Amino acid sequence: MKENSLQSARTKVKRVPKRGLYDKESIYKILDAAYLANIGFNYEEHPFVIPTLYGRLDEYLYIHGAASSRMLKAIVEHPICLSVSIVDGLVLARSAFHHSMNYRSVTLLGQPTLVDNPAEKELGLKVISEHLIPNRWEEVRAPNTKELKGTTVLKLKITEGAAKVRTGDPKDEKEDHNLDIWAGQIPLKIVASESIDDTLLRSKIPVSSSVQNYIKRHS
Amino acid sequence: MKENSLQSARTKVKRVPKRGLYDKESIYKILDAAYLANIGFNYEEHPFVIPTLYGRLDEYLYIHGAASSRMLKAIVEHPICLSVSIVDGLVLARSAFHHSMNYRSVTLLGQPTLVDNPAEKELGLKVISEHLIPNRWEEVRAPNTKELKGTTVLKLKITEGAAKVRTGDPKDEKEDHNLDIWAGQIPLKIVASESIDDTLLRSKIPVSSSVQNYIKRHS
Repeated sequence: MKENSLQSARTKVKRVPKRGLYDKESIYKILDAAYLANIGFNYEEHPFVIPTLYGRLDEYLYIHGAASSRMLKAIVEHPICLSVSIVDGLVLARSAFHHSMNYRSVTLLGQPTLVDNPAEKELGLKVISEHLIPNRWEEVRAPNTKELKGTTVLKLKITEGAAKVRTGDPKDEKEDHNLDIWAGQIPLKIVASESIDDTLLRSKIPVSSSVQNYIKRHS
Repeated sequence: MKENSLQSARTKVKRVPKRGLYDKESIYKILDAAYLANIGFNYEEHPFVIPTLYGRLDEYLYIHGAASSRMLKAIVEHPICLSVSIVDGLVLARSAFHHSMNYRSVTLLGQPTLVDNPAEKELGLKVISEHLIPNRWEEVRAPNTKELKGTTVLKLKITEGAAKVRTGDPKDEKEDHNLDIWAGQIPLKIVASESIDDTLLRSKIPVSSSVQNYIKRHS
C-alpha cells in the first residue's frame, strides 16, 4: 500500500474498477462535501446501519451521540464500515439496463476509539458542528459539564477505504444509439429554503450569519 | 407483535422512543418517499455498507445489481440491515447540545432471497425503475436475455423494522430561551435542475414525459 493510498484487498473496487479512487485527497474531498454517514456495525451478531453526522480533522473523523446510545457502545474498538454518498444526478439511458446515477461515495473501514480527553472531546463536537454549519459553534451556548457528560464522542482514524465516483453521460450499447428515445442526465442537489424561526424565538433576533451563509451556499 | 407492527426487541427505538413508529403504513410511506437505501451486511466477518436503489411492491423490497456483485452474493439468505433516511431540515438550537435534524428514517432487518423466476425478476427490475422515475420503464428498451442474465435481483420481505421521525422546532433548555441567539429550522430538500442531453443524442429527440414529470415534481 502506498503512503497516500487507503486501498486494501477488501476496499478495492471490483465493479467498474476505473471508478475507484484511493488517494487521501480524493477521499477527504468527498467526506468534506457530504454531511451524513451511514455506519455499519454488528449488534448481537446482526448487521445494523445507523445514519449519523460527522466531522473530519486531518486523518480523523469524529462522530458523537448520547452516552446511552447502543450504537456508540457497540462500535468502540469494534469493526465498522462508514459509508458516505452524494448523488449528483440520475443517468438515463436508452435501455433500462444502462440506467445509472452520477455519484461520489466513500467507504471507510476501521475501529473507532473513545475520545475521553475533555479538551479533545469538546474539539470533536466543534469539528462536527463546523462541518455541518461553519461558524455556528461560535454563535451558540457551548456545552456545559452535564451535557458533555451525557455525550459520547468517538474518532475513527482514516486508514483503509475507497472512493467511487461516476460522472457524465449514459453508456448505451452502440446499436441503441439510433433508438428514438431520449437519454441524458437529471442533475440533483440538496437545496435549503428560507429559515423558519423557532416559535419560541424572542422578537427582533435576526437570523444569524452562519445560517444566512449556509442557505446562500445551498440555494 | 401486533398484526400490523414491525416492532421487535431489537428494532425498538431506545433513544427518544416517542419518535419510533412501527406500523406498516408509516414505514411504507417513508420507503416510498426515499430512493437510496444503505445495506449493511457482513463480508469476511467485517461489516460493510453499500448504497443501492430499491423499489417496493406490497410487503417486498426489490434490489438489484450485477450478477458478479460481491454484496449481492454475500447477502442472499444472510442477515442484512436496510436503512433509508430522508433529511427534511437542520434544527438549530440556542445551545450547541440541542442542535438536531428533522428526518424520516426506516431500518429494516431480514434476509433477502434470490428472485430466480424470470417473470418476477423482470417485474422486480420494473418496480425499482418505477420507484425512481415513474413511467420511464415504458419509454426505454427493455432488458434483453443477456442483460437479464448479467443482473441479479433479490427481494426482502418487510417483516421486522422501525421508522424514526423528528419534526418541528428545536428543544432548548428553558433557561436558554432568553439568550440572544437565533434558533429555528433550515428546511432541506433534493431538487432536480434542467435535464442535460446525452452528447450522443440524435437531434430532435425531445425530453421524454417521465423526465419532465420527475423534474417538475422535484423543483
